[in-house]
Amino acid sequence: DPGRGTSGIEKSIPVSGKGSCQAEPGDTGDEQDAVLEDYETIEGSEEIRGKKRKMNIQLMEFPRHMDEYGSLVPIEASDSVPFDIKRVYYIYGVEKGVRRGFHSHADLEQVLICVSGHVRILVKTPWEEQEIFLDDPQKGLYIGPMVWREMFDFSGDAVLLVLAGDHYKVEDYIRDYNKYEQIARQYFTENQ
Amino acid sequence: DPGRGTSGIEKSIPVSGKGSCQAEPGDTGDEQDAVLEDYETIEGSEEIRGKKRKMNIQLMEFPRHMDEYGSLVPIEASDSVPFDIKRVYYIYGVEKGVRRGFHSHADLEQVLICVSGHVRILVKTPWEEQEIFLDDPQKGLYIGPMVWREMFDFSGDAVLLVLAGDHYKVEDYIRDYNKYEQIARQYFTENQ
Repeated sequence: DPGRGTSGIEKSIPVSGKGSCQAEPGDTGDEQDAVLEDYETIEGSEEIRGKKRKMNIQLMEFPRHMDEYGSLVPIEASDSVPFDIKRVYYIYGVEKGVRRGFHSHADLEQVLICVSGHVRILVKTPWEEQEIFLDDPQKGLYIGPMVWREMFDFSGDAVLLVLAGDHYKVEDYIRDYNKYEQIARQYFTENQ
Repeated sequence: DPGRGTSGIEKSIPVSGKGSCQAEPGDTGDEQDAVLEDYETIEGSEEIRGKKRKMNIQLMEFPRHMDEYGSLVPIEASDSVPFDIKRVYYIYGVEKGVRRGFHSHADLEQVLICVSGHVRILVKTPWEEQEIFLDDPQKGLYIGPMVWREMFDFSGDAVLLVLAGDHYKVEDYIRDYNKYEQIARQYFTENQ
């Protein structure tokens, strides 16, 4: 059972510079990998918005106020996360062996935080696939539009908190993987 | 160790109809007590806004999507809770015997949800004092402006999630109880 603070990417295939913004000089797949492997405290929304255009996911580290009274992690909408928080949900009571998710969103931005226990997240585009291990309330996984996600290996005590940039909209879900791949190829090509 | 679903008020002194809206006919302390003892699913924000004007706290029950893949509790800003969610924070790692909080807010509205483990919340005005036990991710405790709060009896696995209607503002905190009582008496008298 891995301890706290070991969250991170377990498998990673470098992203090939997709994005609506111009690639910076020397912006190679290797460099993006380095960004992903080092957690960073995101203080404003601009920085992450720039980054998500390249890969549409981003690992975040939130500050923590810790003293003899315990720990508190504050998240300010449109500052600690790069969107207004229109919806919050949490997933718990997931039994061993269960895998859930299996969808992408067309527009929605989300940040996933495992506030108790641990869980693994698979994020996938037509070109890359990464497995991310979340086991620390300070760590967040930003997932932008058009990323396929699956959640699995929930510990018995896992609580996965999700902050979302919009209200529930059934039409924003893409639940068929083949359809997702088709739309995603078009989306990333247009925004290249 | 009490099981799930037993959340509720443990001690309660009826509120004496404080509020900025007109008291409804037959709106006695006993009736308000009954409202507090029965959890309700709040579907819109209007209902709770009406209620908070009487007592400034409200127990809420959120819907839960539960199936063989686990449980999911969704909370829509300005709908499931009666405010925009500008800030989210969570408290964890609180050791046995620790009591924290000890403040009121002048304007801030919050909803407290214990998403893992259990915790007790003391809410207090110059006229009433209640102890609320939270041990269920579906239960929320709405706390409006000018309510003194203390949090204690955190279980080792407790994670207290708080949704707040505004960003962190140091000037909104009232940390001295005597000063709080003075301001609260004025606040509730003016809004009676």
